[in-house]
Amino acid sequence: MNLPNHFELLATDGAARTGRLTTPHGVVRTPTFMPVGTAGAMKGMHWREVREAGADIVLGNTYHLMLRPGAERVAGLGGLQRFTGWGGPMLTDSGGFQVMSLSELRKVTEKAVTFRSHIDGAKVELSPERSIEVQRLLGSDIAMQMDECVRLPAERADIERAMQLSLRWAERSKRAFEAAPDGYMLFGIAQGGDVPALRQVSARGLTDIGFHGYAIGGLAVGEPQAVMLSMIEETAPALPADRPRYLMGVGTPEDMLEAVARGIDMFDCVMPTRNGRHGMAFTRFGQINLRNARHVDDPRPLDEESPWPAARSYSRAYLHHLVRSGETLGAMLLSEINVAYYQELMQGIRGAIANGTFESFRNQTRAGWARGDITQR
Amino acid sequence: MNLPNHFELLATDGAARTGRLTTPHGVVRTPTFMPVGTAGAMKGMHWREVREAGADIVLGNTYHLMLRPGAERVAGLGGLQRFTGWGGPMLTDSGGFQVMSLSELRKVTEKAVTFRSHIDGAKVELSPERSIEVQRLLGSDIAMQMDECVRLPAERADIERAMQLSLRWAERSKRAFEAAPDGYMLFGIAQGGDVPALRQVSARGLTDIGFHGYAIGGLAVGEPQAVMLSMIEETAPALPADRPRYLMGVGTPEDMLEAVARGIDMFDCVMPTRNGRHGMAFTRFGQINLRNARHVDDPRPLDEESPWPAARSYSRAYLHHLVRSGETLGAMLLSEINVAYYQELMQGIRGAIANGTFESFRNQTRAGWARGDITQR
Repeated sequence: MNLPNHFELLATDGAARTGRLTTPHGVVRTPTFMPVGTAGAMKGMHWREVREAGADIVLGNTYHLMLRPGAERVAGLGGLQRFTGWGGPMLTDSGGFQVMSLSELRKVTEKAVTFRSHIDGAKVELSPERSIEVQRLLGSDIAMQMDECVRLPAERADIERAMQLSLRWAERSKRAFEAAPDGYMLFGIAQGGDVPALRQVSARGLTDIGFHGYAIGGLAVGEPQAVMLSMIEETAPALPADRPRYLMGVGTPEDMLEAVARGIDMFDCVMPTRNGRHGMAFTRFGQINLRNARHVDDPRPLDEESPWPAARSYSRAYLHHLVRSGETLGAMLLSEINVAYYQELMQGIRGAIANGTFESFRNQTRAGWARGDITQR
Repeated sequence: MNLPNHFELLATDGAARTGRLTTPHGVVRTPTFMPVGTAGAMKGMHWREVREAGADIVLGNTYHLMLRPGAERVAGLGGLQRFTGWGGPMLTDSGGFQVMSLSELRKVTEKAVTFRSHIDGAKVELSPERSIEVQRLLGSDIAMQMDECVRLPAERADIERAMQLSLRWAERSKRAFEAAPDGYMLFGIAQGGDVPALRQVSARGLTDIGFHGYAIGGLAVGEPQAVMLSMIEETAPALPADRPRYLMGVGTPEDMLEAVARGIDMFDCVMPTRNGRHGMAFTRFGQINLRNARHVDDPRPLDEESPWPAARSYSRAYLHHLVRSGETLGAMLLSEINVAYYQELMQGIRGAIANGTFESFRNQTRAGWARGDITQR
């Protein structure tokens, strides 16, 4: 059964696409990068800064939120958008991926995943149906089906088993989502590891079931970039062209640029905030490690032509000092600088696709990163 | 020798005073509370938030800044105001107090304090002259003389010895400050522990030397509030009425209100930011511990009539969740809420003194704190 389509494709340039996805809490311009507000907060950033940086939509982690503060509680407080004060569109993952990576004593059966909470040790069961229920309680604009993600490298038999289980969970997720009000969306997730044939089976299977949008999962889990891009090339064309395509958990600016060139519309990653907390800045000239002693006396900003005030006003010397001193402000400034750079990149990508100049934008952007950071004085 | 006076007394109400202190980087309205930006940053706050919260002046810690990034380096980068981006007036302490509390292997002689850096173990000598030199290199608008502060309770002989040493260091500090450009200020520090006679000796000795302003040191170091207030009553009237009076390291809102009633003009304390990091909020109705389970489902803000947006827009439930989850945003929001409340209190105090209604303001404010937090729903 086909679900209503809230995605409007505005322009394409080669395989790259730009469009608009309309959610109950606002419009998302694609390609889009979703900063990750794990447990109802963006680490080191105020929500207004996330908005000002240019983010249209953010991601919340179902696993964290269902354990604390709890989905029923968030529902009672008006949903995630109101509870956090973010107010805009939110996508939530299914919780399954983090059950696998964060919890102990987990057991996967056909019916559900059972695990112990990493917070209080309580035994919790998460089924595809409960995952949808939790995401509906959270009020997420875009819910994700529960799936099983296999870390690469893995045996083909394991990859296939998880992919087929994910397809059966996709069907159950869709049934569980039927009562959701108009406008809210459910995305299926294509699995299949690094096996092209399995990626095709998964994509076709999901398309037959029918979702508002489609994610490519199980990538950026340890494989080389070339494998990731090759799997996108196998999967994306097999998904409906009129629906949004979301590459989960990706990635570096280069990963995203190359994925857009292969037809991806949506991304999420903790990298801009996590790397910011570790003293790394993303700029037009690549990543800069502010911890490095070369910055200690450097009065220059990270990028004097950046549209983001903090990137053009604070000196490298000050950022270096904050990072070395472990001052929270260092993590705060680098997190916002990085999220803003990711959004600047997305804005550039969207404009280039709309103008039919994506290929030259891509080359110029890659040349900037390859040029590297500004030279020593 | 009398130094130029940059303080203008605008109104008094009983012993309480309101005025303006003009520094090279801007005007400070008194009574004023100076948030503490220890190592060139306010923990958990952007500088624009410090400004928006109503702070006219902030405090930097000489001990931290001389060790990292180093006073000569800060001077080369344009001084503390430009280095940090704060831009406004800054007061620095002498470094002496933190040498005593943070460093190891310290040795106090008539000439100087010798200690090992808590960062790299390097041996460092801090004399009254070097302290002034460091503060001048940092570019602080208001420098403090180096003194020796004795923790209470202490023997009278120890208190007297430290007080006399501080007086001799006061003279040396003033000589070292002679080359400073017009507009920059040096404050002397009255010591004398909890001994009224010694407080008087110290205040008179400092007045004879002559400073731009006068601090009362050695309080809020473990003594009961009544002792602190009594020592203010001994010291403040013995200081020149036309100069600003600064009570160092104080304190709670109640401490400050009572100190203003006894003629104090300036305060500093880490309490609003430190308590904020520990889940405590300061409000018109006293301190609120957001970690407490009673807030878990409470949709109400901390104070719906607060002039500070975060205090009236975020729910207690959300703040509770952030604190319990250890999210940086919790510390960020509570730090700004607390700094803003301290500034709101100072603004109220200044207005009441100007209107001649300080006594009723004081009673109303104390009644609010005594009333306690809003009742359960």
